[in-house]
Amino acid sequence: MAAAARHSTLDFLLSAPADCNAILKGLQPVFQEQGMTETIHNWEDHGYLATYINKNGSFSNLRIYPHGLVLVDLQSHSDDMKGRDEIDHLLNKIEEKMKELFHSSIRRVKRLPAIVRGEAIDRYWPTADGRLVEYDIDEVVYDEESPYQNIKILHSKQFGNILILSGDVNLAESDLAYTQAIMGSGKEDYTGKEVLILGGGDGGILYEIVKLKPKMVTMVEIDQMVIDGCKKYMRKTCGDVLDNLKGECYQVLIEDCVPVLKRYAKEGRMFDYVINDLTAVPISTSPEEDSTWEFLRLILDLSMKVLKHDGKYFTQGNCINLTEALTLYEEQLSRLYCPVEFSKETVCVPSYMELGLFESGKML
Amino acid sequence: MAAAARHSTLDFLLSAPADCNAILKGLQPVFQEQGMTETIHNWEDHGYLATYINKNGSFSNLRIYPHGLVLVDLQSHSDDMKGRDEIDHLLNKIEEKMKELFHSSIRRVKRLPAIVRGEAIDRYWPTADGRLVEYDIDEVVYDEESPYQNIKILHSKQFGNILILSGDVNLAESDLAYTQAIMGSGKEDYTGKEVLILGGGDGGILYEIVKLKPKMVTMVEIDQMVIDGCKKYMRKTCGDVLDNLKGECYQVLIEDCVPVLKRYAKEGRMFDYVINDLTAVPISTSPEEDSTWEFLRLILDLSMKVLKHDGKYFTQGNCINLTEALTLYEEQLSRLYCPVEFSKETVCVPSYMELGLFESGKML
Repeated sequence: MAAAARHSTLDFLLSAPADCNAILKGLQPVFQEQGMTETIHNWEDHGYLATYINKNGSFSNLRIYPHGLVLVDLQSHSDDMKGRDEIDHLLNKIEEKMKELFHSSIRRVKRLPAIVRGEAIDRYWPTADGRLVEYDIDEVVYDEESPYQNIKILHSKQFGNILILSGDVNLAESDLAYTQAIMGSGKEDYTGKEVLILGGGDGGILYEIVKLKPKMVTMVEIDQMVIDGCKKYMRKTCGDVLDNLKGECYQVLIEDCVPVLKRYAKEGRMFDYVINDLTAVPISTSPEEDSTWEFLRLILDLSMKVLKHDGKYFTQGNCINLTEALTLYEEQLSRLYCPVEFSKETVCVPSYMELGLFESGKML
Repeated sequence: MAAAARHSTLDFLLSAPADCNAILKGLQPVFQEQGMTETIHNWEDHGYLATYINKNGSFSNLRIYPHGLVLVDLQSHSDDMKGRDEIDHLLNKIEEKMKELFHSSIRRVKRLPAIVRGEAIDRYWPTADGRLVEYDIDEVVYDEESPYQNIKILHSKQFGNILILSGDVNLAESDLAYTQAIMGSGKEDYTGKEVLILGGGDGGILYEIVKLKPKMVTMVEIDQMVIDGCKKYMRKTCGDVLDNLKGECYQVLIEDCVPVLKRYAKEGRMFDYVINDLTAVPISTSPEEDSTWEFLRLILDLSMKVLKHDGKYFTQGNCINLTEALTLYEEQLSRLYCPVEFSKETVCVPSYMELGLFESGKML
C-alpha cells in the first residue's frame, strides 16, 4: 500500500498586529538550515506566504497574517520514524525561534496532533454535528458497497468494532448504552410482548430483547449485507441472534419496512412495542427540500397504526447539539394522525463522541 | 478580535499510481477560473506541488504524490460566510473535475470538517492518547495562570462547562460518571466514614460525598485558583460546597498533599477512604527519566500509611489506550511497602471522548 502523508501544523496567535517582515526574516534561517528552498508571495496588505520545499518531497507553508496570526504547515510522507523526528525537530526550532524573537507578544502557541491523510485505514469520522474527531482505528474489518449504502466495520482499540454506514458512525461493540436507551433504559418489561424493530441490522436490540423472553420479535431490516457484516464482526453486539433469520421467539425480515408496516396495518396486526432504529433524525433543516422528513413522518404514522392502545414507540433523536433538526422533528410529531406524548432522555454513547438523545412515545 | 483562518482539506486516494501531469493539467483550469495565480514545483520523482494564490489573501496547495495521492489544502480568512461559500464552491469544483477525469481510479474522496486556526476560542483539545478532537466550545468562561498551572474553564454546548488544566481536559459538568466511578460506583457506604480527598479542586467528589453523611471529609487541594474558578463556573459539579472551605462534615486544606499525608502518617490519623484525584497516570513510559512516577509511588505509599486496615483507595487510571503507561503503573503498585489488591473498572466519561479506567485498592 502506498504511503500516506502527515500534515503537521503549528500556530501562533499574537496579541498585537504582526511585524510580518520581522517574522519572515526571523524564521527564514530555520527553514534554510534544513536545505529547503524558498518561494515568497507578498500580498502587501494581506501579509506573506512563504513556501519551503525539501528535496525529499516534503514542504512547508509559512503564512503570516498582518493582524497577528502566524500559521505553519508541514506536509511529508509518513512512512518513516526518521521523517517524523525531522518534522518535530523543525517545528520545535520554529517554536523556539518565535519565542526567542517575539516572546512578549505571543498569546497562544498551538500544535495539533498531525493529520494523517490518504491512509488505507481512515481514522477521521466527523460527529453528527460536524466536528472533527480522530478515532483510534487500527483495522478495516469489513468494507462493502451494498445496493443501499457503504458498509464499513472498523476496529477501534477502545470501542471494539464500529459499524459505519455511508460515513456515519452507527454503533460500536462498546455501545450497549445505545441499545439499552432505545429499549427504554431498563424500565420496560418485554416478557411475553409483541415487538417490532424497524432497521436494527446490527442485531443489538434483537439480541437484548430476545434475552427478556418476549412473545415474538419481528425485525425488518432492508439490507442483508449489514446483517452479513454484523453477524460476523459485531458479535459483542448481536451474539448469535443473526446466525439464523428465525428463532424460537423472533424472525428477521429482509425487507423495506414501509410495505411491511402497511401490510400489518391492513391486517390489523398490533404490537406492544415499536422500536425505530432506522437512520437518525435527518440533519437537514429544510423539510420542504428534503423528503427524509416526509419519510420520517410516514414511518411514525404507520408505527402508530400498528401500536396497541397502551403500546410504546422508541427511537433515537440524534445528537443533542442539532437543536434545529430536533425542533423540526418535534413539529413533525405534532402533525401525526393521532396525538402522541413524547419524552426524551440524554445518554452518553461511548463511540459517538457526543451525547445522544433518545425519544419514547405513547398514544394519548 | 482578529479573524482566525479556516483551513480546508480535500483528499483523493487513488487505486493506482497517479499520472501527475494529467491531474495537474486537469485541475489547473479550476483554480485559474477563480483568478488564482499559479506557482509549480516539480520534484520529478516526488510529484508536484502547485500553489495557487488569490488576491484576497487566501491560497491553495495542490500536492500530487506519484504513488496515487492527491491532497488539496485551502486556507483563508474565516470571517465571512461568503468566503466559506467560495471555499465550498472551489472544493466542489475540484471534486467534480477529479471524478470526471479519473473516476475509475479514485478509491476514496475525503473532506474533513475545516480546521479553524488562531481563533480566540480554541475548540481543539487532544485526548490523553494524542488523538485530535474538536469540541463544541462556544465560550471562554475562565482563563488564568496560577502558580501551578494554566486553568481554563470553557463552555461546551453539550457538556456544560469544562475544566482544562494545562491543556488537559479534566472534568465537565456532564461528567458525574467520573465522580461516581472514582467514588466506587455506588458500591461504597460513606455514612459516618472518614474520607481523605487528594486534589479534587473541582469539588465534585466532595459535593457528592458530603451528601452521603460522612463523619468527616478532608480535601487537600494545592491550587486555590482552581477552587476559585470552579466554585463560580462548575456549580453543576460542586454545588455550594466550595463556597466555604469548612462545613459541618468537611474541610478543604489549600496545601500540597505530600506534607499533609506525612503529618497524618506521623500523627497516626487514619481514614476509611483515600481518593486520589491528582493528575492522571503519567503518560511518559520512561519512569527513570520522569520523577512523576516517583511522585505517584510516594503518594500511594503515604496513602496506604493513613488508610485503616479495611480502608479503600480509589484513583483514576487514565484512558484505556495508554496500555504501556498503565502497565508501568501496575508495576509501581507491586513495589509498595505493603501488598495491595487492585481492581479496575472502565467507564464512559462524556467529555473525555475516550473510555476512562478507574482503580480501587485494598491492603491485603
